[in-house]
Amino acid sequence: MRTVDKLRTLVADALGELDLAAELGSLAEPMRYAVGGKLIRPVLCLATAEALGLEPEEALPAALAVELVHSFSLVHDDLPALDDDERRRGKPTVHAEFGERTAILVGDALLTEAFRLMAESDRPEPVRELSVATLRMIGGQHLDFEGGARREDVHRLKTGALFEAPVACALALAEVAQAERRPWLAFATEVGLLFQVVDDILDADGFVDERGPEGARALAEEHAARAHAFLEEVDVETSVLATIVDAVATRTV
Amino acid sequence: MRTVDKLRTLVADALGELDLAAELGSLAEPMRYAVGGKLIRPVLCLATAEALGLEPEEALPAALAVELVHSFSLVHDDLPALDDDERRRGKPTVHAEFGERTAILVGDALLTEAFRLMAESDRPEPVRELSVATLRMIGGQHLDFEGGARREDVHRLKTGALFEAPVACALALAEVAQAERRPWLAFATEVGLLFQVVDDILDADGFVDERGPEGARALAEEHAARAHAFLEEVDVETSVLATIVDAVATRTV
Repeated sequence: MRTVDKLRTLVADALGELDLAAELGSLAEPMRYAVGGKLIRPVLCLATAEALGLEPEEALPAALAVELVHSFSLVHDDLPALDDDERRRGKPTVHAEFGERTAILVGDALLTEAFRLMAESDRPEPVRELSVATLRMIGGQHLDFEGGARREDVHRLKTGALFEAPVACALALAEVAQAERRPWLAFATEVGLLFQVVDDILDADGFVDERGPEGARALAEEHAARAHAFLEEVDVETSVLATIVDAVATRTV
Repeated sequence: MRTVDKLRTLVADALGELDLAAELGSLAEPMRYAVGGKLIRPVLCLATAEALGLEPEEALPAALAVELVHSFSLVHDDLPALDDDERRRGKPTVHAEFGERTAILVGDALLTEAFRLMAESDRPEPVRELSVATLRMIGGQHLDFEGGARREDVHRLKTGALFEAPVACALALAEVAQAERRPWLAFATEVGLLFQVVDDILDADGFVDERGPEGARALAEEHAARAHAFLEEVDVETSVLATIVDAVATRTV
């Protein structure tokens, strides 16, 4: 089994060498600018694939596709008409650096490249998984802006969908029977919720506003414990996935 | 062979009944608002499919997917940061009616629904065709905004890609050998250019500015003639496709 660091390097190298459609022309530069970060979702995809007996490389297009959808969502989310954020990952957001028009097209192109990559897998199921997850994520963003929904319901869609997608895609690629997917997907849901609670702890908002710092930390621990418990339900070696849970629980950035 | 009107009714009915992801919630309403119009691209897909021996219904998901990509492109193109258009098809544009934030999410969701629909076809090739066409279209929009490119090069990408996609998807679904696809795709390219020239004639801009009304009309006739010539190269009944060429050439709206 490859370590989390090895898997992350595999993803980072592949992202760096990603072949964007030639017709995108000079849009390639802001697209590459938009991609990067912690790469948790693609690493989760590769680690799940390897736990299921695939070579991580077999799941690499799917892993990259999920990351491109994540990148697209950040570029559009940061736009003035949505969250209006000027900085991300220690640098100006895409619209702050390249203008709003370019940022809209960059997001559209990243989303489309994701489906082009996903279609490389030679079967339609991963495309369906990614499209359904993306629609859930967009639905979550919309629900969040509308207001009035429960915080957890918003996060299950807005954040959870893109944690479930990498696991769902790995399950599809490994041809795991539907009946055996439940603990895997439940594990992914818990990692997504854990990620969001830790995010709120780091930003001192969201669940911290709702439950206080201690309450939010306790909630994170519950999600981490449940993620570990679901991993124990499956009958394969999941130590790398367990490491990912711990890394998400204890991350400081 | 079904007439163009019958095919258009098939598309319009299916669009009306389109099953959007439940998680999109109240975003479904502005999404449905954004879809409609002349439906040339999906009709072209169904007519090509029928000429190739398929039932039009077999190509319906692909046809609808192409139309959703077209709708997505209009919603984002109309945004203030892009063309800043307030009216389309005799009513306010999506952002004028529902706000800019909603319009961005509506475009994202329409594009994603297109891939979800396309993945129904149970093979990855149509997904690849649609994603490549969409990337070419986005590249064309970007090229257009950048300025300096030849008008025809812009249109081959910006307009042409979404006329080639419905034909390419029908070819893929009918499993036409690559070697036999050339006249079909050349036909589609000519229909796309014809559509754009006629658009400029109706709006009295673009090619009319460049060549005058007579020159633009002569150019439209050249594209129509070439489209007909390519249809004659293929060894199947193409009378419905010929009717589509004439309808595009003589349209007044």
